[in-house]
Amino acid sequence: MNRLPDRVPETIRFERGRLAFLDQRKLPHEVHYWQIDSLDDAIEAIRTLAVRGAPAIGIAAAYALAMSMRDVPVERRTGVLHAHAERLKGARPTAVNLAAAVDRLLALNTHEPELLLEEAERLHAEDRGICARIGQFGMPLIKAGANILTHCNAGALAVSALGTATAPLYLAHRAGRKFHVWVDETRPLLQGARLTAWELSTAGIEVTLICDHVPASLMEAGRIDLIIVGTDRVARNGDTANKIGTLGLAVLAHHFGIPFYVACPSTTYDPDTKDGSTIVIETRGAEEVLGTHAAKVNVYNPAFDVTPVNLITGFITDQGLITRPTESALLRTFRRV
Amino acid sequence: MNRLPDRVPETIRFERGRLAFLDQRKLPHEVHYWQIDSLDDAIEAIRTLAVRGAPAIGIAAAYALAMSMRDVPVERRTGVLHAHAERLKGARPTAVNLAAAVDRLLALNTHEPELLLEEAERLHAEDRGICARIGQFGMPLIKAGANILTHCNAGALAVSALGTATAPLYLAHRAGRKFHVWVDETRPLLQGARLTAWELSTAGIEVTLICDHVPASLMEAGRIDLIIVGTDRVARNGDTANKIGTLGLAVLAHHFGIPFYVACPSTTYDPDTKDGSTIVIETRGAEEVLGTHAAKVNVYNPAFDVTPVNLITGFITDQGLITRPTESALLRTFRRV
Repeated sequence: MNRLPDRVPETIRFERGRLAFLDQRKLPHEVHYWQIDSLDDAIEAIRTLAVRGAPAIGIAAAYALAMSMRDVPVERRTGVLHAHAERLKGARPTAVNLAAAVDRLLALNTHEPELLLEEAERLHAEDRGICARIGQFGMPLIKAGANILTHCNAGALAVSALGTATAPLYLAHRAGRKFHVWVDETRPLLQGARLTAWELSTAGIEVTLICDHVPASLMEAGRIDLIIVGTDRVARNGDTANKIGTLGLAVLAHHFGIPFYVACPSTTYDPDTKDGSTIVIETRGAEEVLGTHAAKVNVYNPAFDVTPVNLITGFITDQGLITRPTESALLRTFRRV
Repeated sequence: MNRLPDRVPETIRFERGRLAFLDQRKLPHEVHYWQIDSLDDAIEAIRTLAVRGAPAIGIAAAYALAMSMRDVPVERRTGVLHAHAERLKGARPTAVNLAAAVDRLLALNTHEPELLLEEAERLHAEDRGICARIGQFGMPLIKAGANILTHCNAGALAVSALGTATAPLYLAHRAGRKFHVWVDETRPLLQGARLTAWELSTAGIEVTLICDHVPASLMEAGRIDLIIVGTDRVARNGDTANKIGTLGLAVLAHHFGIPFYVACPSTTYDPDTKDGSTIVIETRGAEEVLGTHAAKVNVYNPAFDVTPVNLITGFITDQGLITRPTESALLRTFRRV
């Protein structure tokens, strides 16, 4: 596996038989690894968002399930394995990666802790490999002296290893290239301000934090050369669901003639979704927006938006760079044809 | 003077010889009028942003200066008047309206409290008249059933009476028209969330608060019919400086084919500024952005941006509606030719 560039934070550590999660609730103020000593610890960590990001919680759950078998007498393991699997899935019931990771371990048809741990490590290694390949394919886009904007957190903290949208940045930085990254706050949950700004600056990359409606003036002034965002789902035709705000950035980039790339692991491409029109957008609670400062009024708090493929310059995938995004290019790249 | 629609908050009250400011620091949680009993009170209120918004602090200062003469023996008034004027100007040294209002009182060449108070009331009435005329000229744009977006606070709280961008909304509401207003938070100081959402909903207008990067998805879904914003300065050719984020909204409106209007009192049109390229953008401190949640990194916090006139559908002014904004249309409307 590729060695991590210096000081990129590790979301999940499994070393000498011990499991620990970087407690993201305490970031950016405290870098604390929560040692996971029991299934209850792991469930609590997933439930309370100490570990977050779809790929990361899948990996976290796989390790936790495997380790939870170590203290169970052999004769009871089969029943307990399934009970533990269900409890883990219940920690974040809507997280597809969590259920998929747990099911992958169950599909081995074993309750041997060592075999289950090997599979968890394999899952973790695959995720690292996906990030590394996205980084390698995207790295040529990161020119020396460039100003790059990213949105939300599609970083090491959400995935593992190098992250997705951040992977080309980490590899270019490791190669000694100098560039600068604009990070927007990403209201209401501030993943940009809390997580991306922290992880990039911790790795030694030059970062400037901005409010979410600053990019237009930066683009107009020629101070953004490239935008890279992550994605939650890419439809068959290339329409892309990602954190709310992505569509606005894509429209602005189009208006100002700035390249707009989506970092997309093959696991996120969904050929069963025809286009963006059928993607249902999750609306979240008002309490995320109404802090102590806001008036007590109605709130509309969508978590995602959909960017049409015609506003996307290209996709940085673990199977290669797609610079003319069409349905057939996507299907070919992900070998779904 | 036009009567205020029910329950539009009054920023400055002068009744039966008593002056009070709505304390905006306590909004939206507490509606408290600060009774201004001395020059020191007024200076403190202006300095600490209890009263804010360029026109509002001009009016506040004019009343405070006039009233401060009442307790001064006649033989000392002339010297004291100028000393008080200087102290008021020093409360917010960069506020042009404050100095202009104070100078307007000094230009009367009198220290008679009653004459000075009459001038303060005249200034206040002129501001109310400007807002009312903007409201009347803009009101036909507010169609029944429309969804209207506004940004920051160009409302009653920043000006007086009906506000500027909000004036057409208040008058249409008073006329019984039903419509709905999207208010964005306006990070970092949250003038939308704290002030605009509060003042519109207090007046009985249906309001929904959104984060600053939500509008693109609303426009794409056909859920925004009109955008009205205020302005800090309109250049001779129509390029418009306003709160950061305005340019992005104008680009998005252009892309999605949505009318984008600027409410512009004649006092804000500056024919001495040729175009937007010469407007210097104030950059403010990082502490406004870095709350308790953000990583301790570099911050870029511009207070304004400049929207080119070609992205502006029209100007709603106190001298009429400009629907084909050109330099000559602006000069003609404001009788500067």
